[in-house]
Amino acid sequence: MIIGRILGTVVSTQKDERLRGKKLLIVKPVNLDGTDQSGYVVAVDTVGAGYHEKVIIVGGSSARMAEGNKDCPVDSAIIGVIDTVDFTSS
Amino acid sequence: MIIGRILGTVVSTQKDERLRGKKLLIVKPVNLDGTDQSGYVVAVDTVGAGYHEKVIIVGGSSARMAEGNKDCPVDSAIIGVIDTVDFTSS
Amino acid sequence: MIIGRILGTVVSTQKDERLRGKKLLIVKPVNLDGTDQSGYVVAVDTVGAGYHEKVIIVGGSSARMAEGNKDCPVDSAIIGVIDTVDFTSS
Amino acid sequence: MIIGRILGTVVSTQKDERLRGKKLLIVKPVNLDGTDQSGYVVAVDTVGAGYHEKVIIVGGSSARMAEGNKDCPVDSAIIGVIDTVDFTSS
Amino acid sequence: MIIGRILGTVVSTQKDERLRGKKLLIVKPVNLDGTDQSGYVVAVDTVGAGYHEKVIIVGGSSARMAEGNKDCPVDSAIIGVIDTVDFTSS
Repeated sequence: MIIGRILGTVVSTQKDERLRGKKLLIVKPVNLDGTDQSGYVVAVDTVGAGYHEKVIIVGGSSARMAEGNKDCPVDSAIIGVIDTVDFTSS
Repeated sequence: MIIGRILGTVVSTQKDERLRGKKLLIVKPVNLDGTDQSGYVVAVDTVGAGYHEKVIIVGGSSARMAEGNKDCPVDSAIIGVIDTVDFTSS
Repeated sequence: MIIGRILGTVVSTQKDERLRGKKLLIVKPVNLDGTDQSGYVVAVDTVGAGYHEKVIIVGGSSARMAEGNKDCPVDSAIIGVIDTVDFTSS
Repeated sequence: MIIGRILGTVVSTQKDERLRGKKLLIVKPVNLDGTDQSGYVVAVDTVGAGYHEKVIIVGGSSARMAEGNKDCPVDSAIIGVIDTVDFTSS
Repeated sequence: MIIGRILGTVVSTQKDERLRGKKLLIVKPVNLDGTDQSGYVVAVDTVGAGYHEKVIIVGGSSARMAEGNKDCPVDSAIIGVIDTVDFTSS
């Protein structure tokens, strides 16, 4: 999994039926020091995360194991809101 | 998932039976500011997307969860046409 | 999927039983303008592709969905010979 | 699989039900000479690894094959504590 | 799949039960001209490969399709020892 920061939303009307009702969020991957990485990912929110919150993102087929994503065409899901990240840099 | 822009099509006659009738589109991944990323992906259109439209692309095994792709040898699918992308850059 | 160009073959005698009879080809990924990308991939040919032909390559678990690859230990397969690629660069 | 070094932990209260009780560790991928690679991964510990230990990390759907991870939304798991790495550089 | 060269072994006592008896090898990905690529991968040997031999490596969920790896937490496996690689560079 990686850590990301929620930046925004993607709105789509013409879409796969199994995406109906799902919240698609734009997430920016972040480094351990809190700075942004390059790139972004569009992930399904499954835990009610809020804007700018730091979240845990799961990718690949395991994104379909997140609550409500069974058999859905999604490859990235937000599965947790992060309270704290504790680490030593050496 | 990532956001892309449809650039063209790939035509193939000699192909896997399960690709018959599928529309293979060339999609350019784009950044959040709308500029192109490097590279491209060949994705199966499953939502009737049009040229130059911005779309949502799902990759990996989840591309087989998109409408009509069950058990097909595809690793990338267009699953939504994007209306708007709302985000803050900071 | 990506587009590639067939460069050669890999010959292996001591191998997994489920690779018996499979043709392992060396494929060079190409850009939309036809130039080579860096790197290469070893893919199972499932459509009778010929040397130097441009082909469609599927990766990951979906390579096992290609004709004859069910339950085989392969992560890349050639699933189509390309007739034409039509795209606009802007 | 890759080799990593445990740097810390991620704490999350608001999370997917199937993450309850799982220990989420921050792991730094390392090179064969023991130096750090860039980036990090958040992995589920399944073998009781300790801080700064060198571990084996499995990614993708196979992370769900690790002890206790069946059907869980995880894409990275620690599956072994490394005793020794023996290699020749040429 | 990719081509690699066996460099060494990883020894682990405290590990997932399904890794018992498996040989974990350090493999260096190589270019078509035989030179080393950067990085490495830890792969399960399933064909009795020897040191410094050139091998075929399969990644992702398909590594679990290799002989003896069913339902094991492995994402990389050696599935063939290479006799020859024949290719043209243009």
